[in-house]
Amino acid sequence: MEREFITWLRGRLPPHPLLRLGPGDDAAVLQISDSTQCVVTVDLLADGVDFDLSQLDPRRAGRKTLAANLSDLAAMAARPLAGVVALCLPRKGGMDLAVALYEGMLPLAEQYDLAVAGGDTNSWDGPLVVSITLLGEVTGRGPLRRDGAQPGDRIVVTGSFGGSILGRHLDFEPRVREAMKLHANYELHAGIDASDGLSLDLAHIIEESGCGAVVDTAAVPISNDARRLAENIADGPTPLEHALSDGEDFELILAVPPDEAQRMLVEQPLDVPLSEVGEFIAEPGLWQTDPSGNRSPLAPRGWEHRLE
Amino acid sequence: MEREFITWLRGRLPPHPLLRLGPGDDAAVLQISDSTQCVVTVDLLADGVDFDLSQLDPRRAGRKTLAANLSDLAAMAARPLAGVVALCLPRKGGMDLAVALYEGMLPLAEQYDLAVAGGDTNSWDGPLVVSITLLGEVTGRGPLRRDGAQPGDRIVVTGSFGGSILGRHLDFEPRVREAMKLHANYELHAGIDASDGLSLDLAHIIEESGCGAVVDTAAVPISNDARRLAENIADGPTPLEHALSDGEDFELILAVPPDEAQRMLVEQPLDVPLSEVGEFIAEPGLWQTDPSGNRSPLAPRGWEHRLE
Repeated sequence: MEREFITWLRGRLPPHPLLRLGPGDDAAVLQISDSTQCVVTVDLLADGVDFDLSQLDPRRAGRKTLAANLSDLAAMAARPLAGVVALCLPRKGGMDLAVALYEGMLPLAEQYDLAVAGGDTNSWDGPLVVSITLLGEVTGRGPLRRDGAQPGDRIVVTGSFGGSILGRHLDFEPRVREAMKLHANYELHAGIDASDGLSLDLAHIIEESGCGAVVDTAAVPISNDARRLAENIADGPTPLEHALSDGEDFELILAVPPDEAQRMLVEQPLDVPLSEVGEFIAEPGLWQTDPSGNRSPLAPRGWEHRLE
Repeated sequence: MEREFITWLRGRLPPHPLLRLGPGDDAAVLQISDSTQCVVTVDLLADGVDFDLSQLDPRRAGRKTLAANLSDLAAMAARPLAGVVALCLPRKGGMDLAVALYEGMLPLAEQYDLAVAGGDTNSWDGPLVVSITLLGEVTGRGPLRRDGAQPGDRIVVTGSFGGSILGRHLDFEPRVREAMKLHANYELHAGIDASDGLSLDLAHIIEESGCGAVVDTAAVPISNDARRLAENIADGPTPLEHALSDGEDFELILAVPPDEAQRMLVEQPLDVPLSEVGEFIAEPGLWQTDPSGNRSPLAPRGWEHRLE
């Protein structure tokens, strides 16, 4: 499991004066020079795992790969600076595929004022693999980390959750501007982007922060996609279950002190709705309360890369 | 062909104030902040293309991948700062493989004081793909580029060439310290690391610099590996042909003004020998002169990723 590997890696990596935040968050933080802290994140996506090129225009695959990386910068409340792209291309049709991938990435890069600096291309007899590395600038209050949630903090999320497989997992808008705006105007204790799934990403925050969390299930904003998906599959997950565990929503999950959360929810400073879906608590573990106030354990579910 | 794709990309990428040097050199140069220029390079290597895990300890594959990246920083005379690693791992045995790759990389990272900041792991049913992105600091006289060679400059190389397939392509030492030392103490007009092959990498320099080059074939330092390889294969390439076109020597090829070249060759400031192997000329094209002074065209040969 990827978490196991990260645990191993954290124990094995030697400390380094440049490395201000290492593996385990959405991005690493580097002290590039005396005056410059930089956020760096890399994502690798493969055909047949993260998208299916037999069903999908490669432009959308290119866009998705870059958008997922931008979402990691959003999770750190960082401003996008520059990116490099490494491609492992199928030998046949590789040139056309490379062009199409860039055609999908470049408009998104321009939208976020990201300098695309090229990268590496390799070719082989296997399926497409795309790896993008992004550099971001730390904004005002420093990098937004996973490990700062405190008991009493409210769980605040952008947008709605579940059913991204119906299309949103490809065409989502990374919450880069939203994260920077919130980080500039409110005190945020911790943050993550919901790539694995609401419950699983919440579990990442509490694991890093050394606390617990209770989700008020009635308050979880459920997307129309989650409802449609639940309707289409008899005896499948409920809309709420989709919202808690589907993954690839790429919304923000934030730990916000109570006063700030209240102000944020009243002011609603974003184009996308902000919702409070529970709170962080001292007791470890992930919990849910139903509308009658009954608390029960909430199993963190979502997308995990399993290594055997 | 990769060069074709780079040509397309250069025409397509919009200019960006942060991007001081874009695709086509060994690394890109970014203006990360008002006072900080940073070099960024990415390399992607795949099992079955760049190494063969059925024949090779994955520690050596990990080391090679990082060393090839460090060599790109050397080509820019940049000081290594930090790196991120993206892995696409076979599902079965992926955890052990990831650990072994890092075990191969980390001693080399420590040797060059490189901060390893983690990265991304993904798993699939395909072979291993490793992508490493490195950040480097521009040293004293700015980044060493491919496009600065001038007619009259001498072609100066480190070490010897050819036959790296006998083992050196895995265990080579990237010329990071050598490049920084030369860049600090001599005027260098252009540089590249010999990853594709001496003649092909020379062709990259003259293409970018808009000039030509003549190689004095008698002066090319031929490695013992190249001689052994030529002995072992009857009717195969000569030792000189191996030296000119084998690739993965990871030595430096430099364009040095004549006076500086002479001083450098007398002083021999490195632990590895420096040799003058020819000169850059105004007339375009790549040429060779034999010991009797006859000039003929030299076909640039080496390792190229072909895209169809």
